[in-house]
Amino acid sequence: MEDIIYGKNAVIEALENNRTINKVLIMNSVHNDTKIDRIKELAHNKNIIFRFVAKEEFVKYKEYNHQGVLAFASPIEYANLEDFLSKPHKNSSVVFLDGIEDVHNLGASVRACVCAGVEAIIIPSRRSVQVNSVVEKTSAGAINRIPIIKVNSPVNALQKLKENDWWVIATDASAKDNYYDIDYTDMNFVLVLGAEHAGVSKSIMNLSDFKIKIPMATDFNSLNVSNALSIIIFETVRQKNKKFVF
Amino acid sequence: MEDIIYGKNAVIEALENNRTINKVLIMNSVHNDTKIDRIKELAHNKNIIFRFVAKEEFVKYKEYNHQGVLAFASPIEYANLEDFLSKPHKNSSVVFLDGIEDVHNLGASVRACVCAGVEAIIIPSRRSVQVNSVVEKTSAGAINRIPIIKVNSPVNALQKLKENDWWVIATDASAKDNYYDIDYTDMNFVLVLGAEHAGVSKSIMNLSDFKIKIPMATDFNSLNVSNALSIIIFETVRQKNKKFVF
Repeated sequence: MEDIIYGKNAVIEALENNRTINKVLIMNSVHNDTKIDRIKELAHNKNIIFRFVAKEEFVKYKEYNHQGVLAFASPIEYANLEDFLSKPHKNSSVVFLDGIEDVHNLGASVRACVCAGVEAIIIPSRRSVQVNSVVEKTSAGAINRIPIIKVNSPVNALQKLKENDWWVIATDASAKDNYYDIDYTDMNFVLVLGAEHAGVSKSIMNLSDFKIKIPMATDFNSLNVSNALSIIIFETVRQKNKKFVF
Repeated sequence: MEDIIYGKNAVIEALENNRTINKVLIMNSVHNDTKIDRIKELAHNKNIIFRFVAKEEFVKYKEYNHQGVLAFASPIEYANLEDFLSKPHKNSSVVFLDGIEDVHNLGASVRACVCAGVEAIIIPSRRSVQVNSVVEKTSAGAINRIPIIKVNSPVNALQKLKENDWWVIATDASAKDNYYDIDYTDMNFVLVLGAEHAGVSKSIMNLSDFKIKIPMATDFNSLNVSNALSIIIFETVRQKNKKFVF
């Protein structure tokens, strides 16, 4: 099965980041702008077939918000945890998304991770949305910039990280520590965020080194998971910037 | 036109927050859990009609992810800027969302604002999604906890805020100051976030008192607007917590 990548930005990102693309289709009535030029240039340089096709050929892809551009790609290749751990890491971060069910949330989370310099994202192979076209689109192509590691057992994966001197930080609404009370600047850590409703599972909580919460200013405690992730991961960026720049 | 509020949590939030609801429908085959009980109790206490109806009656609402519960409500009443400004404010925050086009982004932004204790959200009456059922659902009902102010002229609205001693803070990728370099703890401020693609308009930039950016850790600079908002607004919460708690 091929993945369909749709929309100008998502296709550009996929081409720039060496996603294995089999074919690019451009609607021949599409307005020729700098992005279309860039797509043609990239496809040409990489010897990827691109074809201009009639509007009618796009009808069957009408459920995609494609802006007149589609690419057909080999499925995302998931990365391997052992390979990742075998490379050197220093003050690195990984995000573990434990059971996200909403594609928009996964896409937005991937974007935030790439912006914040996170080095890998781990998702469980079950009870989670997988990386599909909508995630690729919602991520604005960020999905091609970061390894996605799929694991069968979240607990085993986190234990392997711990054995390699990574610290496990889990979010929990009832935690004592606030997320900004931890010093993130001198360790490799994996930040675990739970499913929209269930939160982080108990077995993961039990092996975590830090439990943190985002203190709310009101009694309404219901952040979208990509927002919670963004708040915490950019606090780690803020701390690193403060420490290493000033 | 009535708004349709769908899903258990959204209906509970609407009832708890005194949204004007005309009728609640519950599918008679729905599993009776604590949330359904809560809906019945709230509707009963507030003298709102609730009816158990057959599955077949829900067919026409199949595009809504309703979980067997629907409420029909009078449209959201937008708040008025003058009324808002006439009340006393101290160290308060308002968020101005200048031209958000995506309903999920607006809903997630409203949630983040309520969690962070923001006192009002301003949206332009044109070039912006309006508050509809999807926003209400995506906001997890947060939309009923915060006044939404709709303004015809963003510039006039911001000028009015300035005349009332509110500081205008605009986000701009090319700003010199990082968002965490500003002290938010001793002022009323309005934080302006721009549209997904266009950013904050020039006329707003010109009257802003502070311009701030979120520094990226990589060359990928493409945060979803609700994530950018969450990062900045929770930095203001962090600063206030640090100042007033310790």
